[in-house]
Amino acid sequence: MAAADDRLTVGVLGGMGPAATFDFCRRLVAATAAESDADHLHVIVDSDPSIPDRTAALEGRGPDPTPALRAAAQRLVTAGSELICVPCNTAGAFLAAVRQEVPVPLLDLVEEAAAGVHARAPAGPIGILATDGTVAAGLYHRALAAVGRGVLVPEGPVQRQVMEVIYAVKAGSAGDRLRRTGAEAAAGLCGRGARAVVLACTELSALFHDGPPPHSVDASQMLAERVVALAGGRLRT
Amino acid sequence: MAAADDRLTVGVLGGMGPAATFDFCRRLVAATAAESDADHLHVIVDSDPSIPDRTAALEGRGPDPTPALRAAAQRLVTAGSELICVPCNTAGAFLAAVRQEVPVPLLDLVEEAAAGVHARAPAGPIGILATDGTVAAGLYHRALAAVGRGVLVPEGPVQRQVMEVIYAVKAGSAGDRLRRTGAEAAAGLCGRGARAVVLACTELSALFHDGPPPHSVDASQMLAERVVALAGGRLRT
Repeated sequence: MAAADDRLTVGVLGGMGPAATFDFCRRLVAATAAESDADHLHVIVDSDPSIPDRTAALEGRGPDPTPALRAAAQRLVTAGSELICVPCNTAGAFLAAVRQEVPVPLLDLVEEAAAGVHARAPAGPIGILATDGTVAAGLYHRALAAVGRGVLVPEGPVQRQVMEVIYAVKAGSAGDRLRRTGAEAAAGLCGRGARAVVLACTELSALFHDGPPPHSVDASQMLAERVVALAGGRLRT
Repeated sequence: MAAADDRLTVGVLGGMGPAATFDFCRRLVAATAAESDADHLHVIVDSDPSIPDRTAALEGRGPDPTPALRAAAQRLVTAGSELICVPCNTAGAFLAAVRQEVPVPLLDLVEEAAAGVHARAPAGPIGILATDGTVAAGLYHRALAAVGRGVLVPEGPVQRQVMEVIYAVKAGSAGDRLRRTGAEAAAGLCGRGARAVVLACTELSALFHDGPPPHSVDASQMLAERVVALAGGRLRT
Protein backbone atom coordinates (compact mmCIF):
# COMPACT_ATOMS: atom_id res chain seq x y z
CA MET A 1 0.00 0.00 0.00
CA ALA A 2 1.43 3.35 -1.00
CA ALA A 3 1.56 6.11 1.59
CA ALA A 4 -1.04 8.81 1.14
CA ASP A 5 1.77 10.96 -0.28
CA ASP A 6 4.23 10.13 -3.06
CA ARG A 7 6.86 8.59 -0.78
CA LEU A 8 7.56 4.89 -1.23
CA THR A 9 6.61 2.28 1.34
CA VAL A 10 9.85 0.57 2.36
CA GLY A 11 10.06 -3.19 2.81
CA VAL A 12 12.80 -4.56 5.05
CA LEU A 13 13.63 -8.21 4.41
CA GLY A 14 15.08 -9.08 7.76
CA GLY A 15 15.79 -11.73 10.33
CA MET A 16 19.44 -12.16 9.33
CA GLY A 17 19.79 -11.69 12.27
CA PRO A 18 16.93 -10.06 14.13
CA ALA A 19 19.07 -7.71 16.24
CA ALA A 20 20.77 -6.46 13.09
CA THR A 21 17.40 -6.00 11.38
CA PHE A 22 16.03 -3.72 14.08
CA ASP A 23 19.34 -1.87 14.42
CA PHE A 24 18.96 -1.11 10.71
CA CYS A 25 15.35 0.04 11.24
CA ARG A 26 16.53 2.33 14.03
CA ARG A 27 19.08 3.79 11.59
CA LEU A 28 16.31 4.34 9.01
CA VAL A 29 14.29 6.31 11.56
CA ALA A 30 17.31 8.27 12.82
CA ALA A 31 18.38 9.12 9.25
CA THR A 32 14.99 10.73 8.53
CA ALA A 33 14.48 14.41 9.24
CA ALA A 34 11.21 14.58 11.19
CA GLU A 35 9.23 17.00 13.28
CA SER A 36 6.54 14.42 14.11
CA ASP A 37 5.53 10.79 13.44
CA ALA A 38 4.02 11.68 10.06
CA ASP A 39 7.35 12.83 8.58
CA HIS A 40 8.68 9.29 8.80
CA LEU A 41 8.43 6.65 6.07
CA HIS A 42 5.94 3.80 6.13
CA VAL A 43 8.12 0.76 6.79
CA ILE A 44 7.11 -2.90 6.68
CA VAL A 45 9.50 -5.43 8.19
CA ASP A 46 9.45 -9.18 7.75
CA SER A 47 11.97 -10.51 10.24
CA ASP A 48 12.05 -14.23 9.51
CA PRO A 49 14.92 -15.75 11.49
CA SER A 50 14.30 -19.18 9.93
CA ILE A 51 15.98 -18.09 6.68
CA PRO A 52 18.84 -20.58 6.34
CA ASP A 53 22.32 -19.37 7.35
CA ARG A 54 23.95 -17.65 4.37
CA THR A 55 27.56 -18.45 5.23
CA ALA A 56 26.74 -22.13 5.83
CA ALA A 57 25.09 -22.31 2.40
CA LEU A 58 28.03 -20.64 0.66
CA GLU A 59 30.38 -23.12 2.31
CA GLY A 60 28.22 -26.07 1.26
CA ARG A 61 27.32 -26.87 4.87
CA GLY A 62 23.65 -25.88 4.79
CA PRO A 63 20.54 -25.40 2.66
CA ASP A 64 20.13 -22.67 0.03
CA PRO A 65 18.38 -19.61 1.51
CA THR A 66 17.08 -18.47 -1.90
CA PRO A 67 13.55 -19.94 -1.60
CA ALA A 68 13.05 -18.39 1.86
CA LEU A 69 14.41 -15.03 0.65
CA ARG A 70 12.09 -15.14 -2.36
CA ALA A 71 9.07 -15.96 -0.16
CA ALA A 72 9.85 -13.12 2.24
CA ALA A 73 10.29 -10.66 -0.63
CA GLN A 74 6.95 -11.72 -2.07
CA ARG A 75 5.25 -11.30 1.32
CA LEU A 76 6.68 -7.78 1.54
CA VAL A 77 5.36 -6.90 -1.92
CA THR A 78 1.93 -8.31 -1.04
CA ALA A 79 1.95 -6.20 2.13
CA GLY A 80 2.56 -3.06 0.07
CA SER A 81 6.33 -2.57 -0.14
CA GLU A 82 7.43 -0.45 -3.09
CA LEU A 83 11.18 -0.62 -2.44
CA ILE A 84 12.88 -3.55 -0.70
CA CYS A 85 16.16 -3.59 1.17
CA VAL A 86 17.94 -6.52 2.78
CA PRO A 87 20.06 -5.58 5.80
CA CYS A 88 22.39 -8.58 5.45
CA ASN A 89 25.62 -8.38 3.46
CA THR A 90 26.02 -12.13 2.97
CA ALA A 91 22.48 -12.42 1.57
CA GLY A 92 23.78 -10.38 -1.37
CA ALA A 93 25.18 -13.60 -2.81
CA PHE A 94 21.63 -14.86 -3.36
CA LEU A 95 19.74 -11.75 -4.40
CA ALA A 96 20.11 -11.94 -8.19
CA ALA A 97 17.69 -14.88 -8.28
CA VAL A 98 15.26 -13.10 -5.95
CA ARG A 99 15.37 -9.81 -7.85
CA GLN A 100 14.16 -11.47 -11.07
CA GLU A 101 10.86 -12.44 -9.46
CA VAL A 102 10.11 -9.30 -7.47
CA PRO A 103 8.29 -6.44 -9.24
CA VAL A 104 9.81 -3.65 -7.11
CA PRO A 105 13.41 -2.41 -6.77
CA LEU A 106 15.53 -4.57 -4.49
CA LEU A 107 18.54 -2.61 -3.23
CA ASP A 108 21.94 -4.28 -3.07
CA LEU A 109 23.55 -3.45 0.28
CA VAL A 110 27.03 -4.43 -0.91
CA GLU A 111 26.83 -2.24 -4.01
CA GLU A 112 25.59 0.73 -1.97
CA ALA A 113 28.29 0.24 0.65
CA ALA A 114 31.03 -0.14 -1.99
CA ALA A 115 29.89 3.08 -3.70
CA GLY A 116 29.69 4.83 -0.33
CA VAL A 117 33.16 3.89 0.87
CA HIS A 118 34.68 4.62 -2.57
CA ALA A 119 33.27 8.15 -2.37
CA ARG A 120 34.65 8.67 1.14
CA ALA A 121 38.12 7.03 1.20
CA PRO A 122 41.42 8.23 -0.31
CA ALA A 123 42.73 6.16 -3.25
CA GLY A 124 43.93 2.71 -2.27
CA PRO A 125 42.65 -0.61 -0.98
CA ILE A 126 39.61 -0.99 1.26
CA GLY A 127 39.46 -3.29 4.28
CA ILE A 128 36.42 -5.49 4.81
CA LEU A 129 35.13 -6.96 8.07
CA ALA A 130 32.53 -9.51 7.03
CA THR A 131 31.40 -13.09 7.41
CA ASP A 132 33.38 -15.92 5.89
CA GLY A 133 30.48 -16.25 3.45
CA THR A 134 30.70 -12.66 2.24
CA VAL A 135 34.48 -13.00 1.88
CA ALA A 136 34.33 -16.39 0.12
CA ALA A 137 31.64 -15.20 -2.29
CA GLY A 138 33.87 -12.24 -3.18
CA LEU A 139 30.95 -9.81 -2.88
CA TYR A 140 33.05 -6.78 -1.92
CA HIS A 141 35.97 -7.90 -4.07
CA ARG A 142 33.74 -7.68 -7.16
CA ALA A 143 31.91 -4.49 -6.17
CA LEU A 144 35.14 -2.67 -5.31
CA ALA A 145 37.07 -4.01 -8.30
CA ALA A 146 34.38 -2.39 -10.46
CA VAL A 147 35.54 1.00 -9.13
CA GLY A 148 39.24 0.12 -9.32
CA ARG A 149 39.77 -0.69 -5.64
CA GLY A 150 41.59 -3.63 -4.10
CA VAL A 151 40.29 -5.39 -0.99
CA LEU A 152 42.03 -6.42 2.22
CA VAL A 153 40.50 -8.97 4.58
CA PRO A 154 41.80 -10.12 7.97
CA GLU A 155 44.28 -12.99 8.02
CA GLY A 156 43.00 -16.41 9.12
CA PRO A 157 43.15 -16.18 12.93
CA VAL A 158 41.72 -12.64 12.98
CA GLN A 159 38.98 -13.56 10.50
CA ARG A 160 38.02 -16.42 12.83
CA GLN A 161 37.75 -13.90 15.70
CA VAL A 162 35.54 -11.68 13.52
CA MET A 163 33.23 -14.63 12.87
CA GLU A 164 33.10 -15.37 16.60
CA VAL A 165 32.08 -11.77 17.26
CA ILE A 166 29.34 -11.94 14.60
CA TYR A 167 27.84 -15.16 15.95
CA ALA A 168 28.08 -13.85 19.53
CA VAL A 169 25.94 -10.87 18.47
CA LYS A 170 23.44 -13.27 16.87
CA ALA A 171 23.28 -15.09 20.21
CA GLY A 172 22.43 -11.86 22.01
CA SER A 173 25.81 -10.68 23.24
CA ALA A 174 27.22 -7.18 22.96
CA GLY A 175 29.68 -5.20 25.02
CA ASP A 176 33.12 -3.71 25.07
CA ARG A 177 35.07 -6.94 24.73
CA LEU A 178 33.42 -7.75 21.40
CA ARG A 179 33.80 -4.14 20.25
CA ARG A 180 37.50 -4.23 21.14
CA THR A 181 38.01 -7.36 19.03
CA GLY A 182 36.22 -5.70 16.11
CA ALA A 183 38.16 -2.46 16.48
CA GLU A 184 41.48 -4.35 16.61
CA ALA A 185 40.60 -6.22 13.43
CA ALA A 186 39.82 -2.88 11.74
CA ALA A 187 43.07 -1.35 12.99
CA GLY A 188 45.00 -4.38 11.69
CA LEU A 189 43.61 -3.81 8.20
CA CYS A 190 44.57 -0.12 8.36
CA GLY A 191 48.06 -1.17 9.45
CA ARG A 192 48.32 -3.32 6.33
CA GLY A 193 47.41 -0.37 4.08
CA ALA A 194 43.60 -0.18 3.99
CA ARG A 195 42.50 3.44 3.42
CA ALA A 196 39.16 2.74 5.11
CA VAL A 197 37.43 -0.31 6.58
CA VAL A 198 33.82 -1.30 5.90
CA LEU A 199 31.81 -2.88 8.73
CA ALA A 200 30.34 -5.24 6.16
CA CYS A 201 28.15 -7.37 8.37
CA THR A 202 24.98 -5.99 9.92
CA GLU A 203 25.77 -7.74 13.22
CA LEU A 204 28.91 -5.60 13.41
CA SER A 205 26.72 -2.55 12.70
CA ALA A 206 24.45 -3.53 15.59
CA LEU A 207 27.49 -4.03 17.83
CA PHE A 208 28.90 -0.58 16.93
CA HIS A 209 25.50 1.12 17.20
CA ASP A 210 27.03 4.32 18.57
CA GLY A 211 29.47 4.64 15.69
CA PRO A 212 32.13 2.58 13.89
CA PRO A 213 35.80 2.35 14.97
CA PRO A 214 38.35 4.88 13.61
CA HIS A 215 38.78 4.92 9.82
CA SER A 216 35.74 2.66 9.46
CA VAL A 217 32.37 3.16 7.76
CA ASP A 218 29.20 1.25 8.38
CA ALA A 219 27.48 -0.56 5.50
CA SER A 220 24.14 -0.66 7.34
CA GLN A 221 24.25 3.10 7.95
CA MET A 222 25.04 3.81 4.28
CA LEU A 223 22.13 1.59 3.21
CA ALA A 224 19.76 3.34 5.65
CA GLU A 225 20.64 6.79 4.29
CA ARG A 226 20.29 5.57 0.70
CA VAL A 227 16.86 4.03 1.41
CA VAL A 228 15.55 7.25 3.00
CA ALA A 229 16.70 9.23 -0.04
CA LEU A 230 15.36 6.76 -2.63
CA ALA A 231 12.00 6.42 -0.88
CA GLY A 232 11.54 10.18 -0.88
CA GLY A 233 12.08 10.87 2.82
CA ARG A 234 14.01 13.91 3.98
CA LEU A 235 17.54 13.04 5.10
CA ARG A 236 18.55 14.39 8.50
CA THR A 237 21.66 16.52 7.95
CA MET B 1 2.30 -17.49 7.87
CA ALA B 2 3.08 -19.68 10.85
CA ALA B 3 6.67 -20.46 11.62
CA ALA B 4 7.76 -23.97 10.71
CA ASP B 5 7.51 -24.76 14.42
CA ASP B 6 4.61 -24.17 16.80
CA ARG B 7 5.65 -20.68 17.86
CA LEU B 8 3.35 -17.84 16.87
CA THR B 9 4.29 -15.24 14.27
CA VAL B 10 4.16 -11.88 16.05
CA GLY B 11 2.63 -8.81 14.39
CA VAL B 12 3.75 -5.39 15.63
CA LEU B 13 1.30 -2.61 14.84
CA GLY B 14 3.69 0.32 14.92
CA GLY B 15 4.55 3.79 13.74
CA MET B 16 3.29 5.48 16.92
CA GLY B 17 6.05 6.66 16.77
CA PRO B 18 8.59 4.87 14.61
CA ALA B 19 11.53 5.19 17.04
CA ALA B 20 9.37 3.70 19.81
CA THR B 21 8.27 0.87 17.49
CA PHE B 22 11.81 -0.25 16.74
CA ASP B 23 12.90 0.23 20.34
CA PHE B 24 10.12 -2.22 21.23
CA CYS B 25 11.30 -4.64 18.52
CA ARG B 26 14.84 -4.44 19.94
CA ARG B 27 13.36 -5.33 23.35
CA LEU B 28 11.52 -8.32 21.80
CA VAL B 29 14.81 -9.63 20.38
CA ALA B 30 16.75 -8.95 23.58
CA ALA B 31 14.08 -10.66 25.70
CA THR B 32 14.42 -13.88 23.68
CA ALA B 33 16.92 -16.51 24.76
CA ALA B 34 18.80 -17.40 21.59
CA GLU B 35 21.91 -19.22 20.49
CA SER B 36 21.42 -18.32 16.83
CA ASP B 37 19.06 -16.49 14.47
CA ALA B 38 16.66 -19.45 14.33
CA ASP B 39 15.84 -19.28 18.06
CA HIS B 40 14.17 -15.90 17.54
CA LEU B 41 10.50 -15.35 16.74
CA HIS B 42 9.20 -14.50 13.30
CA VAL B 43 8.14 -10.86 13.63
CA ILE B 44 6.22 -8.76 11.11
CA VAL B 45 6.15 -5.01 11.69
CA ASP B 46 3.86 -2.50 10.03
CA SER B 47 5.23 0.90 11.02
CA ASP B 48 2.70 3.33 9.56
CA PRO B 49 3.51 6.81 10.89
CA SER B 50 0.47 8.28 9.16
CA ILE B 51 -1.85 6.85 11.85
CA PRO B 52 -3.54 9.99 13.26
CA ASP B 53 -2.18 11.32 16.57
CA ARG B 54 -3.95 9.52 19.43
CA THR B 55 -3.76 12.32 21.99
CA ALA B 56 -5.07 14.87 19.47
CA ALA B 57 -8.05 12.60 18.74
CA LEU B 58 -8.82 12.07 22.44
CA GLU B 59 -8.76 15.84 22.95
CA GLY B 60 -11.07 16.40 19.97
CA ARG B 61 -8.32 18.19 18.03
CA GLY B 62 -7.76 15.58 15.33
CA PRO B 63 -9.21 12.67 13.36
CA ASP B 64 -10.07 9.27 14.86
CA PRO B 65 -7.17 6.82 14.39
CA THR B 66 -9.47 3.77 14.57
CA PRO B 67 -9.82 3.19 10.80
CA ALA B 68 -6.03 3.39 10.28
CA LEU B 69 -5.43 1.06 13.25
CA ARG B 70 -7.96 -1.41 11.90
CA ALA B 71 -6.38 -1.33 8.41
CA ALA B 72 -2.89 -1.90 9.83
CA ALA B 73 -4.13 -4.80 11.99
CA GLN B 74 -5.77 -6.37 8.96
CA ARG B 75 -2.57 -6.00 6.91
CA LEU B 76 -0.66 -7.75 9.71
CA VAL B 77 -3.13 -10.64 9.76
CA THR B 78 -2.95 -10.94 5.96
CA ALA B 79 0.84 -11.03 6.21
CA GLY B 80 0.64 -13.95 8.64
CA SER B 81 0.56 -12.50 12.16
CA GLU B 82 -0.95 -14.84 14.74
CA LEU B 83 -0.63 -12.50 17.74
CA ILE B 84 -0.68 -8.71 17.47
CA CYS B 85 0.77 -6.16 19.84
CA VAL B 86 0.59 -2.39 19.68
CA PRO B 87 3.57 -0.63 21.25
CA CYS B 88 1.67 2.60 21.97
CA ASN B 89 -0.09 3.17 25.29
CA THR B 90 -2.43 5.89 24.04
CA ALA B 91 -3.63 3.68 21.18
CA GLY B 92 -5.17 1.50 23.91
CA ALA B 93 -8.12 3.91 23.96
CA PHE B 94 -9.09 2.76 20.45
CA LEU B 95 -8.32 -0.94 20.48
CA ALA B 96 -11.69 -2.34 21.58
CA ALA B 97 -13.17 -1.46 18.18
CA VAL B 98 -10.15 -2.92 16.38
CA ARG B 99 -10.13 -6.14 18.39
CA GLN B 100 -13.69 -7.01 17.32
CA GLU B 101 -12.65 -7.23 13.68
CA VAL B 102 -9.32 -9.01 14.01
CA PRO B 103 -9.31 -12.82 14.15
CA VAL B 104 -6.14 -13.13 16.25
CA PRO B 105 -5.35 -12.05 19.83
CA LEU B 106 -4.57 -8.35 20.15
CA LEU B 107 -2.61 -7.68 23.35
CA ASP B 108 -3.47 -4.68 25.48
CA LEU B 109 -0.24 -2.92 26.46
CA VAL B 110 -1.89 -1.00 29.30
CA GLU B 111 -3.44 -4.14 30.82
CA GLU B 112 -0.11 -5.99 30.63
CA ALA B 113 1.77 -3.07 32.16
CA ALA B 114 -0.79 -2.61 34.92
CA ALA B 115 -0.59 -6.31 35.80
CA GLY B 116 3.20 -6.16 35.66
CA VAL B 117 3.62 -3.17 37.96
CA HIS B 118 0.96 -4.52 40.36
CA ALA B 119 2.99 -7.71 40.71
CA ARG B 120 6.22 -5.78 41.34
CA ALA B 121 5.29 -2.81 43.58
CA PRO B 122 4.47 -2.71 47.33
CA ALA B 123 0.84 -1.88 48.16
CA GLY B 124 -0.13 1.70 47.42
CA PRO B 125 -0.64 4.07 44.50
CA ILE B 126 1.21 3.83 41.20
CA GLY B 127 2.64 6.82 39.34
CA ILE B 128 2.10 7.14 35.60
CA LEU B 129 4.22 9.04 33.08
CA ALA B 130 2.14 9.11 29.92
CA THR B 131 0.69 11.35 27.23
CA ASP B 132 -2.15 13.74 28.00
CA GLY B 133 -4.31 11.40 25.90
CA THR B 134 -3.52 8.32 27.99
CA VAL B 135 -4.16 10.31 31.18
CA ALA B 136 -7.39 11.92 29.92
CA ALA B 137 -8.75 8.59 28.70
CA GLY B 138 -8.08 7.14 32.15
CA LEU B 139 -6.48 4.03 30.67
CA TYR B 140 -4.21 3.30 33.63
CA HIS B 141 -6.75 4.61 36.14
CA ARG B 142 -9.20 1.91 35.01
CA ALA B 143 -6.65 -0.89 34.67
CA LEU B 144 -5.11 -0.20 38.09
CA ALA B 145 -8.46 0.39 39.82
CA ALA B 146 -9.35 -3.14 38.72
CA VAL B 147 -6.54 -4.43 40.96
CA GLY B 148 -7.30 -1.99 43.77
CA ARG B 149 -4.58 0.55 43.04
CA GLY B 150 -4.82 4.32 42.93
CA VAL B 151 -2.98 6.37 40.31
CA LEU B 152 -0.82 9.48 40.61
CA VAL B 153 -0.01 11.65 37.59
CA PRO B 154 2.25 14.71 37.42
CA GLU B 155 0.74 18.07 38.23
CA GLY B 156 0.00 20.44 35.32
CA PRO B 157 3.38 22.07 34.70
CA VAL B 158 5.28 18.77 35.05
CA GLN B 159 2.80 16.93 32.83
CA ARG B 160 3.40 19.61 30.19
CA GLN B 161 7.14 18.93 30.43
CA VAL B 162 6.49 15.19 30.05
CA MET B 163 4.52 15.90 26.86
CA GLU B 164 7.37 18.07 25.57
CA VAL B 165 9.80 15.22 26.17
CA ILE B 166 7.53 12.74 24.35
CA TYR B 167 7.11 14.96 21.28
CA ALA B 168 10.85 15.75 21.27
CA VAL B 169 11.55 12.00 21.03
CA LYS B 170 9.05 11.75 18.15
CA ALA B 171 11.01 14.54 16.42
CA GLY B 172 14.22 12.54 16.74
CA SER B 173 15.75 13.97 19.92
CA ALA B 174 17.24 11.99 22.79
CA GLY B 175 19.91 12.72 25.32
CA ASP B 176 20.58 13.40 28.95
CA ARG B 177 18.58 16.62 29.25
CA LEU B 178 15.35 14.83 28.23
CA ARG B 179 16.17 11.87 30.44
CA ARG B 180 16.76 14.21 33.36
CA THR B 181 13.33 15.80 32.89
CA GLY B 182 11.72 12.35 32.77
CA ALA B 183 13.62 11.13 35.82
CA GLU B 184 12.64 14.25 37.80
CA ALA B 185 8.99 13.72 36.91
CA ALA B 186 9.25 10.11 38.15
CA ALA B 187 10.98 11.22 41.36
CA GLY B 188 8.24 13.81 41.93
CA LEU B 189 5.58 11.10 41.78
CA CYS B 190 7.54 8.96 44.25
CA GLY B 191 7.82 12.00 46.53
CA ARG B 192 4.04 12.26 46.48
CA GLY B 193 3.65 8.63 47.55
CA ALA B 194 3.80 6.52 44.40
CA ARG B 195 5.18 3.05 45.21
CA ALA B 196 6.42 2.65 41.63
CA VAL B 197 6.22 4.67 38.42
CA VAL B 198 5.29 3.26 35.01
CA LEU B 199 6.99 4.68 31.93
CA ALA B 200 3.63 4.49 30.17
CA CYS B 201 4.55 5.96 26.82
CA THR B 202 6.72 4.04 24.33
CA GLU B 203 8.63 7.23 23.48
CA LEU B 204 9.75 7.34 27.12
CA SER B 205 10.78 3.68 26.78
CA ALA B 206 12.86 4.57 23.73
CA LEU B 207 14.41 7.49 25.62
CA PHE B 208 15.32 5.27 28.59
CA HIS B 209 16.56 2.42 26.39
CA ASP B 210 19.30 1.47 28.83
CA GLY B 211 16.88 1.17 31.74
CA PRO B 212 14.17 3.21 33.51
CA PRO B 213 14.84 5.73 36.32
CA PRO B 214 14.87 4.55 39.99
CA HIS B 215 11.60 3.00 41.23
CA SER B 216 10.26 2.94 37.67
CA VAL B 217 9.20 0.11 35.37
CA ASP B 218 8.90 0.18 31.63
CA ALA B 219 5.56 -0.68 29.98
CA SER B 220 7.24 -1.46 26.65
CA GLN B 221 9.66 -3.88 28.31
CA MET B 222 6.84 -5.67 30.15
CA LEU B 223 4.91 -6.01 26.88
CA ALA B 224 7.99 -7.37 25.09
CA GLU B 225 8.54 -10.07 27.73
CA ARG B 226 4.85 -11.00 27.68
CA VAL B 227 4.82 -11.28 23.88
CA VAL B 228 7.87 -13.57 23.85
CA ALA B 229 6.21 -15.82 26.43
CA LEU B 230 2.78 -15.87 24.75
CA ALA B 231 4.27 -16.53 21.30
CA GLY B 232 6.19 -19.51 22.62
CA GLY B 233 9.69 -18.05 22.54
CA ARG B 234 12.16 -18.78 25.32
CA LEU B 235 12.54 -15.83 27.70
CA ARG B 236 16.11 -14.77 28.43
CA THR B 237 16.61 -15.00 32.17
